[in-house]
Amino acid sequence: MKLSTGFWQTYKEVPADAEIASHQLMIRTGLIHKAGSGLYNYLPMGLRSIRKVENIIREELDKIGCFEITMSVVTPGELWQETGRWDKMGGLMLRFKDKKDADLCISPTNEEAVTDIFRKTIKSYKQLPVTLYQINTKFRDEIRPRFGLMRGREFTMKDAYSFHLDKASLDVGYQALYDAYTAIFTRLGLEFIPVEADGGAMASSDSKTHEFQVVANSGEDLIIYSAEAKYAANIEKAQTKRAPTTYDMNVVPMKEVETVKTETIEAVCALLGQTAAQSLKSMVYTATTGNESKMILAMMIGDDSVNEIKLQNFLKCDHLAASSEDELKKAKLWKGYIGPFGLEGQLEIIFDNAVNLDASYTIGANKKDAHVMGFNPKRDMKKIIQADLRLSKAGDLTLDGKHTVVEKRGIEVGHVFQLGDKYTKDMKVGVLDQNGKLVTPLMGCYGIGVTRVVAAAIEQNHDANGIIWPKSIAPYDVYFATIVKAEEFAKIADEIYADMKKAGIDVVYDDRNVGPGNKFKDADLLGLPYRVVLGERDFGASGELEIIERKTGTVTKVKRDELISTLKNLLK
Amino acid sequence: MKLSTGFWQTYKEVPADAEIASHQLMIRTGLIHKAGSGLYNYLPMGLRSIRKVENIIREELDKIGCFEITMSVVTPGELWQETGRWDKMGGLMLRFKDKKDADLCISPTNEEAVTDIFRKTIKSYKQLPVTLYQINTKFRDEIRPRFGLMRGREFTMKDAYSFHLDKASLDVGYQALYDAYTAIFTRLGLEFIPVEADGGAMASSDSKTHEFQVVANSGEDLIIYSAEAKYAANIEKAQTKRAPTTYDMNVVPMKEVETVKTETIEAVCALLGQTAAQSLKSMVYTATTGNESKMILAMMIGDDSVNEIKLQNFLKCDHLAASSEDELKKAKLWKGYIGPFGLEGQLEIIFDNAVNLDASYTIGANKKDAHVMGFNPKRDMKKIIQADLRLSKAGDLTLDGKHTVVEKRGIEVGHVFQLGDKYTKDMKVGVLDQNGKLVTPLMGCYGIGVTRVVAAAIEQNHDANGIIWPKSIAPYDVYFATIVKAEEFAKIADEIYADMKKAGIDVVYDDRNVGPGNKFKDADLLGLPYRVVLGERDFGASGELEIIERKTGTVTKVKRDELISTLKNLLK
Repeated sequence: MKLSTGFWQTYKEVPADAEIASHQLMIRTGLIHKAGSGLYNYLPMGLRSIRKVENIIREELDKIGCFEITMSVVTPGELWQETGRWDKMGGLMLRFKDKKDADLCISPTNEEAVTDIFRKTIKSYKQLPVTLYQINTKFRDEIRPRFGLMRGREFTMKDAYSFHLDKASLDVGYQALYDAYTAIFTRLGLEFIPVEADGGAMASSDSKTHEFQVVANSGEDLIIYSAEAKYAANIEKAQTKRAPTTYDMNVVPMKEVETVKTETIEAVCALLGQTAAQSLKSMVYTATTGNESKMILAMMIGDDSVNEIKLQNFLKCDHLAASSEDELKKAKLWKGYIGPFGLEGQLEIIFDNAVNLDASYTIGANKKDAHVMGFNPKRDMKKIIQADLRLSKAGDLTLDGKHTVVEKRGIEVGHVFQLGDKYTKDMKVGVLDQNGKLVTPLMGCYGIGVTRVVAAAIEQNHDANGIIWPKSIAPYDVYFATIVKAEEFAKIADEIYADMKKAGIDVVYDDRNVGPGNKFKDADLLGLPYRVVLGERDFGASGELEIIERKTGTVTKVKRDELISTLKNLLK
Repeated sequence: MKLSTGFWQTYKEVPADAEIASHQLMIRTGLIHKAGSGLYNYLPMGLRSIRKVENIIREELDKIGCFEITMSVVTPGELWQETGRWDKMGGLMLRFKDKKDADLCISPTNEEAVTDIFRKTIKSYKQLPVTLYQINTKFRDEIRPRFGLMRGREFTMKDAYSFHLDKASLDVGYQALYDAYTAIFTRLGLEFIPVEADGGAMASSDSKTHEFQVVANSGEDLIIYSAEAKYAANIEKAQTKRAPTTYDMNVVPMKEVETVKTETIEAVCALLGQTAAQSLKSMVYTATTGNESKMILAMMIGDDSVNEIKLQNFLKCDHLAASSEDELKKAKLWKGYIGPFGLEGQLEIIFDNAVNLDASYTIGANKKDAHVMGFNPKRDMKKIIQADLRLSKAGDLTLDGKHTVVEKRGIEVGHVFQLGDKYTKDMKVGVLDQNGKLVTPLMGCYGIGVTRVVAAAIEQNHDANGIIWPKSIAPYDVYFATIVKAEEFAKIADEIYADMKKAGIDVVYDDRNVGPGNKFKDADLLGLPYRVVLGERDFGASGELEIIERKTGTVTKVKRDELISTLKNLLK
């Protein structure tokens, strides 16, 4: 693209709503344009990157025999009703009615649609396994769209769905996709970690789930990680042990203490001169299944937190949420002063496994401005239920106790998930097996946030001057900036541009009538892998052009006839 | 693709709602799958064709320097309100509200969105002209979606928009797009006609508009065409002359005749033994502008019809529709018996230019079961307004009177249109010209119905056995069917398949364990340009394979080592 006639513009201003670097840089470099809240137009430069990401995904999936399809963006409500998700999907799914009053939605995901295609096409085990994928527009009506393409409402996603006769085949298919994802994110030039994740309450115990996380400080996800142990898991899924803890093993009578306006563990510990491990945190949740609700009291060591997914899995409830202030008031519970003693019978009380039942703890006194010291679970509770409820954290040990884990922040860019028979069962899909018996096929699903990948790549690869694109997804390979005035040199520059294009080098030709400072600033901001500079004076004197690597600043000087071979080598 | 493990299925049944060949064939060959009313999923075979169409479009537009972008499918209502189209777009635009009660719609077209991008990017004449395009999903909530991809609700469209400093530049840009469209549809292998079309009431008189029509009997559009005169126009836009007509020049007194239950021109002519040119047809319309409505009586020669676009352009009204039976009753007009005599003052009466004002005609008597013979416009009307109102038809003459036109049916697959300053004015877009003066740029818009092109190609290219794909957009080039059982021949077939793939030939390999009859039937149905057959007996005896051209049935026998070069020649 010749910039003098190209459709491209950089901006100095950072929009007020752009909180993270990738969002700011994508707007400033004219990659995207905001169409509305959480809605973006992809401008030529941005679209080129997106297409490169799409093509890498496509190549790797085609390599393992997946079939590309495109499902309608608008899908009929009927289909979602078959699995009950029309009612369960919640507010992220944008529903509306058409002219004939029929229910429609903009697909936030496509399990139902793909299962409908499958059941109309595949009848026999001979046609299995099969994996279908699409790269298409999705819409999720986020309450607070933010971070540009990172959490927009409309976005491009690659979603794949595999169908299998049995779990062994599903495992093989799952591994193939897992490996393809590894190949994809490697080719994309990203630092990523595949982490174990939780499949949710509906997943069977042997169902596998991984997220592919791009490591970045601005990431919204927390990863529990140990390089030595080769362990990585989403914080909600992580299985770790609390590091050795010094409990208070003095068994003394319970004693009420005055704790005026002391509603947090930190404040209580400070007031009483205790460590967090000497007190228990009381967390109240409302668990709902169908129309039934009950309140749950989760008891945690003072500096631990509840892993709500673990709690929900333990309770096997449909829905779990921290009880609201209204609910607490109705149950006559004093926020900040709740404790297990005296609540038996009124609430279901569950102690975390890390709680030493023989130790003494400070707990809430269930009245305002008071706590109880010396609570000993074994002595003071009639019945004790204990379960693994705690959220892993940095400093924990791996399950074998050998390694200490750290926390990393990540951006989820991919997701592989064994769905099992949830959708095929609800949608009554049958396939004949080798013995002529009708069986319910199993499914896997596999997503990549295409537009999010581009944002994550920038989040991970930028500096104060702008983007530093991974080679494989840079909008162009080379930024060719010329500092020439004489007709003669302009003609040479045009020729060199034509030569590069002819050699298959994707090149932006900055032939604008602006100063070198502006050109170099724009080049750094856009951050293509290499900048090539033709300076009239230098080229006139030495016949050399400069190649500057964006990432390292390394300068290579080359004669005109070495330019293309040098670039080709660098771009390999 | 190997069919034994491929995701492809043909069907014998034609779905009840598939009325036209392309719809039936696309379903029967597993190109598409119905997701809901007017909603289709594109299966692997269908998607391959769509992608080939997209790539040809992309190549030709990139060649003339257009820039590809992608605009959000969901667009905010605010943008449409700027041009007033939020209220004017009518029922085709599917509107809804998001969680925050903000107005949104699924884009049926993108003039506002692209103008918003333009005004935020382009400030100076130096950056003009520029053409932006996208290939993206659109949605129009058709009342009666039909004909599969031909008139679906969700579809893929290429929409381009050009911006210019002045009309001269717009004309140049328009011609460039017109030429690119000609190149595109030629490469797509379609028989098409660019026809003059009407730009609607908002278009200025010097605004150009053409439709690209694929000629097909099932087409919904009528084209007035003369090959000799190189004339082609959409019937609504067509400018032709009525062929020489014998009028009844006997001036006689008016006479009422009884015409019981004789409400059509045909019936009146038959009863009275007259030709259609001896009677006048009275057509009543309701014209609306703002909140004002009035009734119009259009007087046409008996066998002519009203061109409603011409009438609307003449009246300069916002909206025009044939008056309803209720409206007629209220105005005390007898349907089938209406005539101009006696209605002066009550209705605005306009005679078509083809009406010979000196001739005698039969007209309705404005009472039930009666007509009036011998009506002479000049004698019997106080005042006469005459205008060009008639719809062209086969048998008309070109304006120079030298050629007779015919009617052809067409499928509109493309559209080029000079928008002028409608959107840039409403959206307050300004660009600095050479003199530093702020001017309102002019726009052109250019659409191609990508998914409709695929349907139109099939509509134009099929026979009783199935599709006959144009080479450039066939899902694959070759259908390789093998009739082998012995291990030895299966191995050779696998090798030949691998050789073809390696040579860059897109090939479907029918290695399924089914009989030759089934394979050949499926091959014909799918209609790839060439079928290659490896028969165990023939190949064993002569070492030859058969290449059968789908379009002509021509059989070529080749040795294995000539296969690829022969195919490459054929596919050129």
